[in-house]
Amino acid sequence: MKQVNPEGLSSPPPTGVGDEIYALVQRLFPICRSISGDGVRQTLDVMSGHIDLERHEVPTGTQVFDWTIPKEWNIRSASITGPDGQTVVDFADSNLHIVNYSLPFKGILRLDELRPHIHTLPEQPQVIPYRTSYYTPTWGFCAAHDRVANMPDGLYRVEIDAELKDGSLTYGEYLHRGQTEREFLFSAHICHPSLANDNCSSLAVLAALARSLKGRSTRYSYRFLFAPGTIGALAWLSRNENRTCLIDHGLVLSCVGDAGSPVYKRSRRGDAFIDRAMAHVLGRQAGAKLMDFSPYGYDERQYCSPGFNLPVGMFQRSVHGTFPEYHTSADNLDFIRPEHLEDSFRVLTDVIDIVEEDWTPLNLLPKGEPQLGKRGLYAAVGGQKSSGATSISLLWVLNLADGQHSLLSMAERSNLPFKELAASARLLSEHGLLSAAS
Amino acid sequence: MKQVNPEGLSSPPPTGVGDEIYALVQRLFPICRSISGDGVRQTLDVMSGHIDLERHEVPTGTQVFDWTIPKEWNIRSASITGPDGQTVVDFADSNLHIVNYSLPFKGILRLDELRPHIHTLPEQPQVIPYRTSYYTPTWGFCAAHDRVANMPDGLYRVEIDAELKDGSLTYGEYLHRGQTEREFLFSAHICHPSLANDNCSSLAVLAALARSLKGRSTRYSYRFLFAPGTIGALAWLSRNENRTCLIDHGLVLSCVGDAGSPVYKRSRRGDAFIDRAMAHVLGRQAGAKLMDFSPYGYDERQYCSPGFNLPVGMFQRSVHGTFPEYHTSADNLDFIRPEHLEDSFRVLTDVIDIVEEDWTPLNLLPKGEPQLGKRGLYAAVGGQKSSGATSISLLWVLNLADGQHSLLSMAERSNLPFKELAASARLLSEHGLLSAAS
Amino acid sequence: MKQVNPEGLSSPPPTGVGDEIYALVQRLFPICRSISGDGVRQTLDVMSGHIDLERHEVPTGTQVFDWTIPKEWNIRSASITGPDGQTVVDFADSNLHIVNYSLPFKGILRLDELRPHIHTLPEQPQVIPYRTSYYTPTWGFCAAHDRVANMPDGLYRVEIDAELKDGSLTYGEYLHRGQTEREFLFSAHICHPSLANDNCSSLAVLAALARSLKGRSTRYSYRFLFAPGTIGALAWLSRNENRTCLIDHGLVLSCVGDAGSPVYKRSRRGDAFIDRAMAHVLGRQAGAKLMDFSPYGYDERQYCSPGFNLPVGMFQRSVHGTFPEYHTSADNLDFIRPEHLEDSFRVLTDVIDIVEEDWTPLNLLPKGEPQLGKRGLYAAVGGQKSSGATSISLLWVLNLADGQHSLLSMAERSNLPFKELAASARLLSEHGLLSAAS
Repeated sequence: MKQVNPEGLSSPPPTGVGDEIYALVQRLFPICRSISGDGVRQTLDVMSGHIDLERHEVPTGTQVFDWTIPKEWNIRSASITGPDGQTVVDFADSNLHIVNYSLPFKGILRLDELRPHIHTLPEQPQVIPYRTSYYTPTWGFCAAHDRVANMPDGLYRVEIDAELKDGSLTYGEYLHRGQTEREFLFSAHICHPSLANDNCSSLAVLAALARSLKGRSTRYSYRFLFAPGTIGALAWLSRNENRTCLIDHGLVLSCVGDAGSPVYKRSRRGDAFIDRAMAHVLGRQAGAKLMDFSPYGYDERQYCSPGFNLPVGMFQRSVHGTFPEYHTSADNLDFIRPEHLEDSFRVLTDVIDIVEEDWTPLNLLPKGEPQLGKRGLYAAVGGQKSSGATSISLLWVLNLADGQHSLLSMAERSNLPFKELAASARLLSEHGLLSAAS
Repeated sequence: MKQVNPEGLSSPPPTGVGDEIYALVQRLFPICRSISGDGVRQTLDVMSGHIDLERHEVPTGTQVFDWTIPKEWNIRSASITGPDGQTVVDFADSNLHIVNYSLPFKGILRLDELRPHIHTLPEQPQVIPYRTSYYTPTWGFCAAHDRVANMPDGLYRVEIDAELKDGSLTYGEYLHRGQTEREFLFSAHICHPSLANDNCSSLAVLAALARSLKGRSTRYSYRFLFAPGTIGALAWLSRNENRTCLIDHGLVLSCVGDAGSPVYKRSRRGDAFIDRAMAHVLGRQAGAKLMDFSPYGYDERQYCSPGFNLPVGMFQRSVHGTFPEYHTSADNLDFIRPEHLEDSFRVLTDVIDIVEEDWTPLNLLPKGEPQLGKRGLYAAVGGQKSSGATSISLLWVLNLADGQHSLLSMAERSNLPFKELAASARLLSEHGLLSAAS
Repeated sequence: MKQVNPEGLSSPPPTGVGDEIYALVQRLFPICRSISGDGVRQTLDVMSGHIDLERHEVPTGTQVFDWTIPKEWNIRSASITGPDGQTVVDFADSNLHIVNYSLPFKGILRLDELRPHIHTLPEQPQVIPYRTSYYTPTWGFCAAHDRVANMPDGLYRVEIDAELKDGSLTYGEYLHRGQTEREFLFSAHICHPSLANDNCSSLAVLAALARSLKGRSTRYSYRFLFAPGTIGALAWLSRNENRTCLIDHGLVLSCVGDAGSPVYKRSRRGDAFIDRAMAHVLGRQAGAKLMDFSPYGYDERQYCSPGFNLPVGMFQRSVHGTFPEYHTSADNLDFIRPEHLEDSFRVLTDVIDIVEEDWTPLNLLPKGEPQLGKRGLYAAVGGQKSSGATSISLLWVLNLADGQHSLLSMAERSNLPFKELAASARLLSEHGLLSAAS
């Protein structure tokens, strides 16, 4: 559980938060998820052990903007048995073996008939690719190239015990209520099966983050959305269309557990507060990277569509689609590490601190510098290091406290850490040198 | 002849357009042009074989702003004969041998009297420099330094059979009428004698461009102006002062046939549409260069004078004044090549395509992404490569079609080729997903 | 004495101005200054030999904004005598030996009692540090580390014959009256004892600058302020609060005599005229550097406090606090050189020239270029080099003389020297081609 220190800024992540997050990923990893079906529900069940999730079901056939909620898909088993009676590919070994949303099928096929239904990555011959066919009625298997490259001719038995039926699409939501209705939205896709980084990592980091907010009195309300990619985000937007105006800040998360440095992709607006806050947090971290918005990625595509244009950016570590493990069986529990999950968690708490702690001070003695010495504020700087204030940050805050600069603006101009300026502003306020600009 | 393909974008330059342009340069090269006189008229005659030029004559003595149309200059022959009766320098060998606008002269001079009238380039001893004396009543010869450096003492006979008399200054004009009166002005100086790159190349490229527009229905009207440098452009401006407000885009051309990479000098405004469009075209070409406006160059000096400040930039290849062949007899038919002329032609057709095809679309399903799959638009991308659309360009167009972004703005933000975005916008329009922003 | 040439621009610094400035530094250097006391008065006395300084006394106890004028400090002698009767440290040798503003003290101390009162720089063992205790009632000595590191145990006699009493704080002021009341403020702190670069150099450069303005008819009034750091600037601001709105430009000076390249720190506004003018002057000097404002430095901290936010930047050579001689006895007369003082003087006269000579011309023949040839202005360029005008600067001035560009704007856009553009504008005005934009 995260503690709030007296100064209002969050303390460093509790020791072991990375291990806790990793432990949750381990529980989520094996579940076979898709954009609908019981896998999503099981995932939400596991997460409910950490936070009180509200679960929503959107029935098959529901219109969400230009899209229609598809039939619900569930699968029990799937396999290919060779001419010699040996099992060649089995869903029981890895849920990546089946093309996600495959139609049910049972039959005997010649190898040449079967081949087009088997997907491999010849350039990565030992890993299973991840493939889907949500909106195309077909079936297929995915396999390591080495395993299926030399299958002998003959007849193969294919059995896919899957089901596509009217049902519903499921998403989960958690709201931490703050002092105001203004919201910070965190959103992660919940539709990928056994891929650890993409996106069990984000589900688990957000669960820990939501949990850490419990008992913390915040200005903003924090909404956590766990929904199937694209169609799930659209369903949520469709049901909450009139509430989107409350969203002041937002982040989509994906792939937050690998060894890559943090990467932030700006919102479509490019200069939203979240863009500036993330730039500040990552700007102080070696290797971290900022990217401009592009309409290719995860659910920021929907939040940033022109009809919404929400201030929602995207946070990840290794950029999706650029690392070889992406969308393969190599995105497993070895690919992510507790320390990287913890670092992602820390980035998020840092940005929440900025969102919570930013304010616009007004220097009450704006003509010349106030005499800090007689107030013990020079001593303070040396002697009370715990305040976090420094001599230079006190001077910057006083100088820029003209009612036109929030603390984040001051951090941008001074190139000092937000935390240090916030501590200085607190100290100066305590000494009656600042008030809040109206 | 240039073809317009069904999608409205021009097709690649017809094979051989570079050869056609080069052939026209070959015919224009030998003519002795100046800022007035029959050379300009002969040049326009030759060009009239390609386009229906309108010819204008501005009488000597006409006031054009701060300037006065000078007397008309014509020359029949000019030579220097040495003490031994041998011809040392003869206009018949190269029209660069005479200082352009030399007064008529006949006389016998000692070498020391003659010397000040002979101009050479000691640092390039084998080429003839190009010199003029438009507004200074004098005469002179230009010669290869090696040819005249060791002339023996003695008496030299000088004969310049030239004429300066009341007459007129001539310029030619061609207007391709579009659907609107808004104009794209192309302007090239026609006053230089036998210099291939400067500026036969531009005359011939523009003639080919004008011809290629025939039969193409365009939004803009395209004006092609072939006028003597400075005084000719001023004469045109003076006669069309009230029409200059119709000019939305303009380009001055010079030196467009050499092996240098394309160079664009921005208009005085710096951010005019033509500046952005040329930046887009050249931005995708290795070695191409953009320069800021400066009031030193060709007739953009007049179009961009503060009283007009027209959105007219300058297009060239090697920057005038910076290559050793500039304004010498080395700027000959070997210095330019059909492939460079064709590349310049292609730059111009690309920029015309942007001017013609730019529009501001409005996404009719702006909330979330439309489902492209059910419209066959994902298939389209793979299957109908000929449309020119790509998956990422479809997404960019949809995302930015908020009525605030024209296709060129989208190209600037996405860093995708304009053509690709235009193709995507066309495809999306055909599927009812876009309308034109009012 | 500085001469004004007929064109109105100042001539290059008179030969030997660096030597004159250096000679004045030599006279100012030995005086023991502080934020109050007779040292400041003696300094102003010496400077009065060069300019007619007005002297102001602000009584102890006067409230200036958040501060109070302290008791006046004077010192006659101070020394430490060792157990062997030898003088260990003596104020008579260097006024840096005493902590500035030390309380009077007389007593016998054991070495361990004395030690905390002796300040050294172990990492620079041969120089005496400079320390102050303005607002902390204490006493202390400063010494070269090597001199006091191995003092034997024993009893030491300490005698500080100093005095803290009701008196006043002194500052000096000189106003060169121009044609208008709009002011250019130059300000230098006068409180440091024997430190040559910091800040005898600035006092002497400004004295020479003030003297050079005598007899020059200027548009602006030039105010020179020599006041103790912080408290002196605040006293002046407090007494002139209603006049600060007259300040259009300002520079604080410190450390302008060392071998470092010129450095300009922008005003808090960042884009004030003085910021642009200094950028222009230093932009043409190799090694010169521009820095953004920060609220750490000299009295620009007070002028740029949010309640004033004056257009005042700071000019220095080596950046204060970054060179090893800073605030030590190594900042002596060898550390500064006449040529560096002269270069600083030249930077200031250059910036004054811009402030004085900037204006916004209007091209009276704005349509096309005027015919410069018929006015002899091309000849002028070659033949009358002394005018300072060049062909390209004539063209730039004509092109940008649309009433929206002052000469400084033209210099920024054309990247040509302001002087050259000013000369061209003068020449064009003389030929009736420009008028002043209203």
